[in-house]
Amino acid sequence: MDQYSKDLKVKVFNIEAGRLIAILNEKDAREFGVFVGDRVELLNLRNHKKTVGIIDITKSVVSPNQIGLFRDIVDKLEIKGNELIDVKPTGRLKSVEYIRKKLNKEKLNEEELFQIIKDITEDRLSDIEAIAFTSAVYTVGFDLDETVYMTRALIENGKKIDFGVDNVVDKHSIGGVNGRATMIIVPIITTEKLFMPKTSSRSITSAAGTADAMEVLAPVDISFEKVRAITKKHGGVISWGGSVDLAPADDKIIKLRHSLSIDPEGQVIASVLAKKASAGSKHVVIDFPVGQYVKVKNKKDAAILAKKFIYVGKQVGLDVEVVLTNGDDPSGLAFGPALEAKYALEILEGKRFDNLAEKSCELAGSIFELAGVCRQGQGYNKAKDILKSGKALNKMQEIIKAQGGKIFKSTQILYSPLNFEVSAEKNGKIVGLDISLLTKMARLSGAPSDKNAGIMLSKNIGEKIKKGETLLTVFAENERKLKIAYEFSNSVKVVKII
Amino acid sequence: MDQYSKDLKVKVFNIEAGRLIAILNEKDAREFGVFVGDRVELLNLRNHKKTVGIIDITKSVVSPNQIGLFRDIVDKLEIKGNELIDVKPTGRLKSVEYIRKKLNKEKLNEEELFQIIKDITEDRLSDIEAIAFTSAVYTVGFDLDETVYMTRALIENGKKIDFGVDNVVDKHSIGGVNGRATMIIVPIITTEKLFMPKTSSRSITSAAGTADAMEVLAPVDISFEKVRAITKKHGGVISWGGSVDLAPADDKIIKLRHSLSIDPEGQVIASVLAKKASAGSKHVVIDFPVGQYVKVKNKKDAAILAKKFIYVGKQVGLDVEVVLTNGDDPSGLAFGPALEAKYALEILEGKRFDNLAEKSCELAGSIFELAGVCRQGQGYNKAKDILKSGKALNKMQEIIKAQGGKIFKSTQILYSPLNFEVSAEKNGKIVGLDISLLTKMARLSGAPSDKNAGIMLSKNIGEKIKKGETLLTVFAENERKLKIAYEFSNSVKVVKII
Repeated sequence: MDQYSKDLKVKVFNIEAGRLIAILNEKDAREFGVFVGDRVELLNLRNHKKTVGIIDITKSVVSPNQIGLFRDIVDKLEIKGNELIDVKPTGRLKSVEYIRKKLNKEKLNEEELFQIIKDITEDRLSDIEAIAFTSAVYTVGFDLDETVYMTRALIENGKKIDFGVDNVVDKHSIGGVNGRATMIIVPIITTEKLFMPKTSSRSITSAAGTADAMEVLAPVDISFEKVRAITKKHGGVISWGGSVDLAPADDKIIKLRHSLSIDPEGQVIASVLAKKASAGSKHVVIDFPVGQYVKVKNKKDAAILAKKFIYVGKQVGLDVEVVLTNGDDPSGLAFGPALEAKYALEILEGKRFDNLAEKSCELAGSIFELAGVCRQGQGYNKAKDILKSGKALNKMQEIIKAQGGKIFKSTQILYSPLNFEVSAEKNGKIVGLDISLLTKMARLSGAPSDKNAGIMLSKNIGEKIKKGETLLTVFAENERKLKIAYEFSNSVKVVKII
Repeated sequence: MDQYSKDLKVKVFNIEAGRLIAILNEKDAREFGVFVGDRVELLNLRNHKKTVGIIDITKSVVSPNQIGLFRDIVDKLEIKGNELIDVKPTGRLKSVEYIRKKLNKEKLNEEELFQIIKDITEDRLSDIEAIAFTSAVYTVGFDLDETVYMTRALIENGKKIDFGVDNVVDKHSIGGVNGRATMIIVPIITTEKLFMPKTSSRSITSAAGTADAMEVLAPVDISFEKVRAITKKHGGVISWGGSVDLAPADDKIIKLRHSLSIDPEGQVIASVLAKKASAGSKHVVIDFPVGQYVKVKNKKDAAILAKKFIYVGKQVGLDVEVVLTNGDDPSGLAFGPALEAKYALEILEGKRFDNLAEKSCELAGSIFELAGVCRQGQGYNKAKDILKSGKALNKMQEIIKAQGGKIFKSTQILYSPLNFEVSAEKNGKIVGLDISLLTKMARLSGAPSDKNAGIMLSKNIGEKIKKGETLLTVFAENERKLKIAYEFSNSVKVVKII
């Protein structure tokens, strides 16, 4: 309800809330006719700075005729001390009406989705409203048009890197497995005059994200401008995505929906493609791990989803290809930032060629084919040749140097002397490795916070092992965590040998 | 993911957040493997007090190895200064799994709904999770079984008043119109050895709630124990619902869904009936205003909804009847706490008998019939006789006295001397009054915060009026608000005369 405005005295809370919260006394809230979660327009009468605040209501923290503001709003309004600001209820946002439309099972048009994403980006929608939107998209669904609108809205409401050229490529793994392939693919690809400005994530629930592993070799907290500059000069970069500001509304939505683990298909497609398009990519290979324990269980479902990615990509100017990979076996044998970085360097140095190397060459090959660097069917071999020739290693060392790193060789990364081994209890063939238990054990040992903690497997699925032979080694940075991981290792079975 | 625990040093924020928020530094959050909205178990090592906290993550407000806690948790754990507390991620709540089930369009069983409501009641579910639940119920729906389970869960997870007798009655108006009828119905009903312990709401967006109007006559902020005691002695009470603790999860859900204005049918039925059952009612009359501008648009929809109320009521031991009333005309001519209180007293004093008095007798009559006090078809006349006899006025004065009030007669309530009149612009018959504009004008004049502010209509719909005759009078407590209401009155047309 539209009401008159009122001048209230600011009470500053010196805390960053990460949200634009304005606290009213319940008496003023009643006078305004507003509830928790409604919005007010705040105007600093001295300097005419304006912002929107989302209301919280209290009986005691602020008095009548006062308004409690956290640092976020205090900074925006450049408030000095307890000055008076003008407070006025804004009425209902249009985007709330659009969220209601989706809750009522109606289709949203391009303008409506744009407004919702704009208001999420600019913190005008509350967390409550944003998660209601996501829940509605999850239960009601998006059709392909809506997915395209959402993708465009995410791109438009964020920064964009424009290289002004057509040969920018990228790859993305659905479900986050095969992550360390990035550290092999980027140097292979960028030997061939292609740009690959990779922004990667840190791990939250796994033993290491690509950004965590790369950080062992070089700084990854690189500004938007530096990502651009390094890419232009060297072809590639492996940075942490949190330090650039591509499709920020997407990051907010992902954080909100985390505790519920809901990932509406339309939002996932929009999320992946918007990030790629914002980073200036033209050709994108999407890695779909298919298997029992990953999101996509069979090839039929994968094919349906792949078509949607390709269609939506086309609408936002992306040339998309989908590659199905084996999602059940561990890619590589390392779990933990330093161990995974060492492992990736060993592949680049030609010391190993295993399933992680193969997957990397397969994905790099698809990128080559998609970008027209070689003919269909020749990509894998081309990638493998580059890897074997040592050119990819040289390129990786060039990128590490450009990012300001100091570790260029696998032998510079030392194993922690604090470790224990787990050995096989019988002779046989390894037919199963429980990745979720291995991940948990690696995390108990300290990964990813402790860079040198984690697990190195000695054998992968399909290999033979003898009773008493080492199956894996667990490393830690301190005795306490080593002990916790050791106790855990005694309580579970991570390997199946027949 | 289940992780080891860690001892963190408390940093106290002396603010009541109204939620159990625990702020972690992002470094510790990564070490625990937790996100915003996840939960931790907090244990005070000194006194072994425990609680759950919902995580917020910061870069700067708290340092690594610190945990930021607001008053809510500090009080629960009886923390003194910066002591160490043990912090441990709890893993995912079962109730989050059940919310996911509803998001996945599955039916919930009684246990599952009970757990969700229990966790909302005890603040274990975050606002995000609770609104996702409500959104899912809104889009996916509840069947009648689920509605019954939800009603029971709300009743079980809150206080209950048990009078140990069968003659406890209540009425409820869907959509909140006809509210002031309560001040006429309660004294009529309680002359007849029925108990009617009414808990009413304050207004948020209207000119006055029943609690606001009653408060002009007597205190309404009455404890649970006192509601019971007054009811047992005098038969009735008209108190503010916020001071008793019936079905608290329901109040939380209603607050959360307010900004989205979503009211899932199953939740509305459960909400109304759980409040009545918790207050010890056995016979409940539900007033369904039907009309163009209210929630239920036609009698067919009303009949379908009525059946559901009656069925669910029966399952939780309530004898429910639904009465359809006219939802389009204003009930009575007053807008604002003091004016509405004065108006209700005038009806009880026999000075007026208008459509509000008629609706009140109709609803009171239905209660009499439902409770077996008189035969079907005789309720209305019985209620009207009691009203006309002056017995209802005597009973109302008895209740006012019991609640500690001092205003017993309508003449004790004086009109504010600050007022202006709006008169008819032509001769004719009043065929429409815009209730939402009248409400807004009353609010601009200061209602409901300023008790004496508001509007008194001189004529209702259906009456004839002459050009220049007074249509309504607007009252305020100060010149500024009077002026704002005056300007508004000149900019809108609240009446339709033909």
